Amino acid sequence: MHYFQREDLEGLSKIYRLNLLNSATGYKSAHLVGTRSKTGVENLAIFNSVVHLGSDPALIGIVLRPTTVPRHTYSNMKETGVFSLNAITKDQISDAHHTSAKYPKEVSEFDQTKLESEQKNNWEAPFVKGAPIQMGCRFENEYPIKENGTILLIGSIQQLYISDSLLLEDGWVQLDKEPIVTINGLDGYALPTLLERFPYARPKI
Amino acid sequence: MHYFQREDLEGLSKIYRLNLLNSATGYKSAHLVGTRSKTGVENLAIFNSVVHLGSDPALIGIVLRPTTVPRHTYSNMKETGVFSLNAITKDQISDAHHTSAKYPKEVSEFDQTKLESEQKNNWEAPFVKGAPIQMGCRFENEYPIKENGTILLIGSIQQLYISDSLLLEDGWVQLDKEPIVTINGLDGYALPTLLERFPYARPKI
Repeated sequence: MHYFQREDLEGLSKIYRLNLLNSATGYKSAHLVGTRSKTGVENLAIFNSVVHLGSDPALIGIVLRPTTVPRHTYSNMKETGVFSLNAITKDQISDAHHTSAKYPKEVSEFDQTKLESEQKNNWEAPFVKGAPIQMGCRFENEYPIKENGTILLIGSIQQLYISDSLLLEDGWVQLDKEPIVTINGLDGYALPTLLERFPYARPKI
Repeated sequence: MHYFQREDLEGLSKIYRLNLLNSATGYKSAHLVGTRSKTGVENLAIFNSVVHLGSDPALIGIVLRPTTVPRHTYSNMKETGVFSLNAITKDQISDAHHTSAKYPKEVSEFDQTKLESEQKNNWEAPFVKGAPIQMGCRFENEYPIKENGTILLIGSIQQLYISDSLLLEDGWVQLDKEPIVTINGLDGYALPTLLERFPYARPKI
């Protein structure tokens, strides 16, 4: 095995370290986050840092990078109080990855990719048309992480759309019934296949 | 598509809601967290909430559920200040899932499964033998999430072991070179295959 001590990590080149540490922590969730600025420009950005925070109430967390450079998604979330989370499928990965390019604020990523905006139920943030899972979320709070200037943003799920093909009788969403991807590091996209689902674990003794 | 409004989510049965909301947010990282109590009992627990927080310094976050019931992993982390994160492979999923059973604090999950403890470089928390990625982490801080009583725990990576087969020239860890799994909801385990890795995205205009 290759062994890196703390001091080795600190001595790596920036790109090597970014690649290594973003991918060593395993597969991540892949979402397109949809927002709209107060002047009406739609924004779409890929995130690999959405976590489940709780079911009752339905809460999610997203880690946002330091706001030392303009972050359109973050400023739109703050301005309007809402955003959408959209699962990403295999056919969308090239366009989804392209949303990470740094466009000026007045340019919508929907116009620079084949991804289409979808409006429904009066939700003020755009969804991604055809995404098999769409969530309309409200900004609830943010926690500045003083260790490195990142932000943990808390959102509540107000609207949840799930493709019928994914939803099982007990509420479980079998993600591989649609080609929903996961992210490996900053730039790798992988397609999972279900191995097994286990019952609730009870002690053997 | 199936549509759930906020009020629908609140009215669901607890199990249905847990299944739905844990899986709707997409694939998650799968880790076994190794700790040792101050009296020397080793503990191993599965987590699907590890996120990358930053590369310089190398930081990770883990969401921990409310501490209204005993949480051995959390109390060990606090007592000793260290823990390990271990990637989970296909052959380990049944045992990994079993670590979620509620054993008394004096029982080690290493004794109740085929998973073996590994000690190295004097790190005070046990690693999982044979895991293709192992991280020795130090407890740095914790942020109580007042919205639902969960905790975001911050850890720094002090030791990082990566199987040689996974590590590419530019530092990227290609996770599917070993059968490393991802988690679908609370109890589903899936095996990803890499689709594509993209270059850094630049604006087209």
